[in-house]
Amino acid sequence: MRARSDSPSVTSAGKPEQARAELVRYGRGIAQSREDDAVAVEEPLEIRLGRYEDGRLQHRPVSITMRTPGDDFELAAGFLFTEGILQSRQQVQEIHYCGRGKGLTNTLRVDLAAGVTVDVQRLERNFYTTSSCGVCGKTSIEALATGAVPVAPTDGFTIDARLIGELPARLQAQQDAFRSTGGLHASALFARDGELLALREDVGRHNALDKLVGARFLADALPANDAILFLSGRASFELLQKAVMAGIPVVCAVGAPSSLAIAAAREFGVTLLGFVRDDRFNVYAGEQRLA
Amino acid sequence: MRARSDSPSVTSAGKPEQARAELVRYGRGIAQSREDDAVAVEEPLEIRLGRYEDGRLQHRPVSITMRTPGDDFELAAGFLFTEGILQSRQQVQEIHYCGRGKGLTNTLRVDLAAGVTVDVQRLERNFYTTSSCGVCGKTSIEALATGAVPVAPTDGFTIDARLIGELPARLQAQQDAFRSTGGLHASALFARDGELLALREDVGRHNALDKLVGARFLADALPANDAILFLSGRASFELLQKAVMAGIPVVCAVGAPSSLAIAAAREFGVTLLGFVRDDRFNVYAGEQRLA
Repeated sequence: MRARSDSPSVTSAGKPEQARAELVRYGRGIAQSREDDAVAVEEPLEIRLGRYEDGRLQHRPVSITMRTPGDDFELAAGFLFTEGILQSRQQVQEIHYCGRGKGLTNTLRVDLAAGVTVDVQRLERNFYTTSSCGVCGKTSIEALATGAVPVAPTDGFTIDARLIGELPARLQAQQDAFRSTGGLHASALFARDGELLALREDVGRHNALDKLVGARFLADALPANDAILFLSGRASFELLQKAVMAGIPVVCAVGAPSSLAIAAAREFGVTLLGFVRDDRFNVYAGEQRLA
Repeated sequence: MRARSDSPSVTSAGKPEQARAELVRYGRGIAQSREDDAVAVEEPLEIRLGRYEDGRLQHRPVSITMRTPGDDFELAAGFLFTEGILQSRQQVQEIHYCGRGKGLTNTLRVDLAAGVTVDVQRLERNFYTTSSCGVCGKTSIEALATGAVPVAPTDGFTIDARLIGELPARLQAQQDAFRSTGGLHASALFARDGELLALREDVGRHNALDKLVGARFLADALPANDAILFLSGRASFELLQKAVMAGIPVVCAVGAPSSLAIAAAREFGVTLLGFVRDDRFNVYAGEQRLA
């Protein structure tokens, strides 16, 4: 697992994990059958950050999230990038689980390369924001604008509006784990011509997007300003925040956008589409990118 | 807003807030109409905890969450209760916004009664759990079992299985804000006879449940071991955790349960139903409560 700092070791844990659960199917108030079926796995993941201090590698926990095992290294990298802690893969020396074997893959370490310093306190500041006027949507957007290095979405990027209507079917055709469990959120990146570039699934919608962005981060392929982001659920501020950090110019959601997601999209020039289903959608921001 | 410690002041902020957003409706790749429509409001809420230290009331932030304004005091109370920080409403002297007027209701304070001490570090421990073997689903369940004072769900509580099929329609009939925005999660409590006792909505599913539990907390009506919890989405571990803390014996979800939600339900004797729709459902735990 060891690797040079210019080539972080990032063996993916693979497809989202599934489990089997016994259940009893009821219909019209009567037990119909007793069987077992696939369910989405949910397990905690502790992300630790390793840093050289006085010549020694010290590590401390920075986050714990309930996630579906699979693509954990991408999840950790994407989380740290979209939170503004990491800026490039060259800062990472190695990502590895703290334990080995089954049941020991719920704690992982992101070790920084020697000489790299990051602002870990930023996580706590995000969590415990205060200001004299209190918090508000405007301060959330300002924090996103000034706190990190958001990548401005590309100008001159247009997409064929007819293509959008085809994306849900293309995504569903690939959503194996969701089909079998019904319990996963999906985040996907499509190219401008509608080709599916990447798909990640998780019980947590923010995790699915972190895995997707993390994959690009580890492939040194950010900003993702050539891509369309597709979300299987609703569009919240948190998801728009991550899209902005990754430089994604177009965000499509199957569900509704929140007021603050719309405000963030307009502020950062992101095209935001909601209720994308059955060849229909609503455009909430950035209509100029639709041709 | 001032009140005696045995009667905390808890004026509710009321129904979930909505906003209007301009949008362009597309169909078959062509812009059909330009209009404005209701969207769910999402704004940050900072929860501060006030405590008497050396005779003076000191306060510090304990959480910030992205929520739909409305029922904020219930949200704060429910959050602190389900996280194991608060045990009874008698511990609360007053809940109030830090500011007054529009735009100043995104920071609130929960002031403890004089002499009350709580374990605030518990929040950070939950967030930064570590143990020698790392974290795992089992440790998450153990933390729930030992960390606070979970209320064992009532024995001998049975419900008519035919009634379950009627709950989705009864809930939808009351979901005004969801109907108009499509952007809210709902949590509802039903009595054993199917009467809707309480309904709360929010852009965040955990917030909707915190509001529901917080309403019972502030009414001094916990544990809620006379009630059926209905969730408009999927059942995650976090939601089961909150149900266990509130002593709710039956949890019904429109969507899928996760593996860890099923494990938690079985560990704590909660009846867990998933995919509750169209007069069908799956029973994942506690079938003995179905008559």
